[in-house]
Amino acid sequence: MIETKKLDKIRRNNGGVDLNKNKSKLKIIPLGGLEQIGMNITVFEYEDDIVVVDCGIAFPEDEMLGIDLVIPDVNYLKMNQDKVRAIVLTHGHEDHIGALPYVLRQLNVPVYGTKLTIGLVENKLNEHKMLNDVKRTVVTPGQKIKLGDAFNIEFIRTNHSIPDPVALAIHTPAGGVVVHTGDFKVDYSPINGKPIDLQKFAELGKKGVLLLMADSTNAERPGYTQSESSVGRAFDDLFSNFKGKRIIVATFASNVDRVQQIIHAAGKYKRKVLVEGRSMVNVIGTAIELGYIKMPKKMMITFEELSQYREGQVVIITTGSQGEPLAALSRMAYDNHRHINIHENDKIIFSSKPIPGNEKSVSKVINTLFAKGAEVIFEDAHVSGHAYQEELKLIHTLVKPKYFIPIHGEVKHMRKHAELAENLGMKSDKITILAPGDVYEVNYRSAEVTGKITSDPIFVDGLGVGDVGNIVLRDRQKLSQDGLMTVVITVSKSTREVLAGPDIVSRGFVYVRESGDMMGEAREVVVKALEQCKRKNIRDWGGKMKTAMRDALRDFLWQQTKRNPMILPVIMEVDK
Amino acid sequence: MIETKKLDKIRRNNGGVDLNKNKSKLKIIPLGGLEQIGMNITVFEYEDDIVVVDCGIAFPEDEMLGIDLVIPDVNYLKMNQDKVRAIVLTHGHEDHIGALPYVLRQLNVPVYGTKLTIGLVENKLNEHKMLNDVKRTVVTPGQKIKLGDAFNIEFIRTNHSIPDPVALAIHTPAGGVVVHTGDFKVDYSPINGKPIDLQKFAELGKKGVLLLMADSTNAERPGYTQSESSVGRAFDDLFSNFKGKRIIVATFASNVDRVQQIIHAAGKYKRKVLVEGRSMVNVIGTAIELGYIKMPKKMMITFEELSQYREGQVVIITTGSQGEPLAALSRMAYDNHRHINIHENDKIIFSSKPIPGNEKSVSKVINTLFAKGAEVIFEDAHVSGHAYQEELKLIHTLVKPKYFIPIHGEVKHMRKHAELAENLGMKSDKITILAPGDVYEVNYRSAEVTGKITSDPIFVDGLGVGDVGNIVLRDRQKLSQDGLMTVVITVSKSTREVLAGPDIVSRGFVYVRESGDMMGEAREVVVKALEQCKRKNIRDWGGKMKTAMRDALRDFLWQQTKRNPMILPVIMEVDK
Repeated sequence: MIETKKLDKIRRNNGGVDLNKNKSKLKIIPLGGLEQIGMNITVFEYEDDIVVVDCGIAFPEDEMLGIDLVIPDVNYLKMNQDKVRAIVLTHGHEDHIGALPYVLRQLNVPVYGTKLTIGLVENKLNEHKMLNDVKRTVVTPGQKIKLGDAFNIEFIRTNHSIPDPVALAIHTPAGGVVVHTGDFKVDYSPINGKPIDLQKFAELGKKGVLLLMADSTNAERPGYTQSESSVGRAFDDLFSNFKGKRIIVATFASNVDRVQQIIHAAGKYKRKVLVEGRSMVNVIGTAIELGYIKMPKKMMITFEELSQYREGQVVIITTGSQGEPLAALSRMAYDNHRHINIHENDKIIFSSKPIPGNEKSVSKVINTLFAKGAEVIFEDAHVSGHAYQEELKLIHTLVKPKYFIPIHGEVKHMRKHAELAENLGMKSDKITILAPGDVYEVNYRSAEVTGKITSDPIFVDGLGVGDVGNIVLRDRQKLSQDGLMTVVITVSKSTREVLAGPDIVSRGFVYVRESGDMMGEAREVVVKALEQCKRKNIRDWGGKMKTAMRDALRDFLWQQTKRNPMILPVIMEVDK
Repeated sequence: MIETKKLDKIRRNNGGVDLNKNKSKLKIIPLGGLEQIGMNITVFEYEDDIVVVDCGIAFPEDEMLGIDLVIPDVNYLKMNQDKVRAIVLTHGHEDHIGALPYVLRQLNVPVYGTKLTIGLVENKLNEHKMLNDVKRTVVTPGQKIKLGDAFNIEFIRTNHSIPDPVALAIHTPAGGVVVHTGDFKVDYSPINGKPIDLQKFAELGKKGVLLLMADSTNAERPGYTQSESSVGRAFDDLFSNFKGKRIIVATFASNVDRVQQIIHAAGKYKRKVLVEGRSMVNVIGTAIELGYIKMPKKMMITFEELSQYREGQVVIITTGSQGEPLAALSRMAYDNHRHINIHENDKIIFSSKPIPGNEKSVSKVINTLFAKGAEVIFEDAHVSGHAYQEELKLIHTLVKPKYFIPIHGEVKHMRKHAELAENLGMKSDKITILAPGDVYEVNYRSAEVTGKITSDPIFVDGLGVGDVGNIVLRDRQKLSQDGLMTVVITVSKSTREVLAGPDIVSRGFVYVRESGDMMGEAREVVVKALEQCKRKNIRDWGGKMKTAMRDALRDFLWQQTKRNPMILPVIMEVDK
């Protein structure tokens, strides 16, 4: 399965008719470079026009020590700068908009998105002091825009775990239309806005869809996602049970509808709302300003006002639902929060699910909260923002695409999504799972991967973009395991005698005060290595001597400890 | 809930009768020191006798960089050395026996366990060259042993994910009996051995149980665990579907019954068995030797013989089901295995579930295998070894204890288990969740935490036991984030002039060849700092000068990069 077959077979499937005999093909290239993480940025190229869909970051893997975030390599776009017409955004999550400041600095093109999406982009550009340099256009679902000669893009209303998400219908001269779902679910009773525009998907399907690209995140899960409004009922129950208790709710800052429902419950049970955590304050601010959250002005209080209320009269909405060590809830749990101490009267609701990889740190926060006597509720008060199997089947059946690319999710999810499409009757040779950098070319006659561009992930660490590569990461890895030992000697330039040292400094290896003997012996080992060099008349301080010191120390330390610290020999020369 | 109440109330509950008026209390102290990880080692102390139940290790948390394993602090036992009669083991998992070599080296006492448990202990002692120094006694379920004056311990057959597990009935003069379940599940159709001895639990309950200590791992899960034999049926289905394909099964080395079932399936479908991975080879060897695994001799093949068979004629049983980067399956996935390359004809069965914290690394291996075209099955072929809610209810109802301590599992699981006991009618003041070091004292009149001993976790790193503490870990953490910079100068002892340097060496900070300018500037910054010291007539090389160099560099690097590498200034003095 999944492999594209030869032209012959495909032509046969079309009854031998050449449907687009004089047409170029549409090229689709997912950038990014991380095999397994959703860094969403996809190039759509038709002859002289390029449109980019989404521009996300990825969060670093465990082994990317010290890395803050990962952004895509957009070298391909820079090489084709004149062609790039726009970046079109499907919604405002970080893995879809987070790389914009980095990419726009290299490639200033107009950005299109719905109102909340552009609002969040503007926050981001503002932080990077780039707001005045970037052209933004707010679009509404149902709207169609022309980009370059080749592209007509229609925005289609969907549902997701952030308001204002859209799918895209991408019309090009390659024939037919490409339907890109973005991240989506089917919610018949969403909080803010209307249900996904299924009629539009049906209409496009009726006319003929060339290619479907659809969200695979939950392709393993049978059934349907629950509606976001079901969480409101859960909050209602919880708030009614927790009278007199302090309630703390942790959720994703970007889940604006969730926050709205907490505010509804707070209103019903006459609680004031306190918002904590930088990203939570930012997003809620933007959402209120743009009308996505409605709340009475007097309802929101600050930490200064908190003491005026009894614990049963407030709800704290906070970041930290992923167990991030520096987020507000974690600081409360670990006694590092300036204003909040967790105690037995606290009811803490996780309105979230751990993102894969965060399970352990979430568990740790939950256990710590429990150990302080609080009650923690980590079931029931959450629904997913990504379509389950039945919803995926609905979209496939409405859209009836000729070709299919599962997107968004890990390889295992995309494989499952491909299986699901096959079970609905699609031939496996019409389905392709793309890896980053794959060049996929499609029109009515064929769809296949025709090439590969390099698109390595770029690491951001502090202010540095791309200055941390694999060598630096390997060193950090080594340092993290066994620490380091620096050994320094000063030698005379003329006589080659050792004038001072060897001095040994170690960090992260053993606690020095308790291992004084070993350090003394290590010094001896270096002295002996130097004497041996002298006897052999080796005088190459830069190379051979350093190597001799390093090797002798390494062998000694391994034998003593079965550890392998990084060893840094430094030789200073003085005129004497 | 969970707090113990005053004597009055307890006496009232016993109708005012003082049941043990002249009795001492039984002390129970869980050692370990890790709040949230099951490092199972529990002290039972009655007057002049101590018995220790289990002696496990914990695996390091993410932030314990470079640590190999974590063992308990047994200082309390060393201080009471003369009292300690034995270590009694419930089963052979690492978190119950792994610390034996370290503890027995400090405290040589006899060890009791069932046949397979002692077999695995002997493997371990052998590796540590301690086999001849330790007295081991094999017991059988149903047997009762006397330890010291105070303790009579009865071994009760249970079921778990390793053969030969036992619960303990601990009789002491404190009155009644303590039932300690160990890790258990209820399996009515186990592979090897018989179902859990429910009649014994009932008999003890009938006579009156003082205290129940029971496994909480799956207290959050409703219903029953499936029988281990259900996995056999799953293997049968999978093997019958995968004719002609190479089958690779990853599971826990210690799950001997699982391995037996894979061998059964291999026999039925005429496949040879190849065992890969050090711990898998060890455990299966011991299990075959002791009669826990039965297989025809000719069935097992080596890598040398592998080429004689077609892919459909073998099954490879391997370690790596937890995504451990160095385990055999991971090496196959990441192209680091000497004999096996993954390809499209491979069917890879994960007969396991990720242990909390391993989800991400397991996903990574699965995705990598999928990306190579293999099919990965990670559902269906596993059952848990820990009782679900209905099984816990069964044990509570049979045993009907006066007091209850939930054990084994995270705090959230123990809380849930306490809730379950309350729902069965137990009063919350009879239930106590212990933290490591808590001294719990119990007899028929009362049960309460009366004190606390210190019992910090001890880190093992290579050969070092306890030589890596919090300072070393903090240094490793810092080094792992932003690397380090060493800055060295040589000065004249007499004139205080700088004779050589500053030389700067950095690792894990930025890739040096691309940041030559910054290193040059950093050197200037140090030179300036030294000049300033000179102007201020600061001559304290060891203290103030080093601080001045470090501070100047730190500020410069932060401003340039927003990173904070560890800075190590070294000053060498020479006579000149």
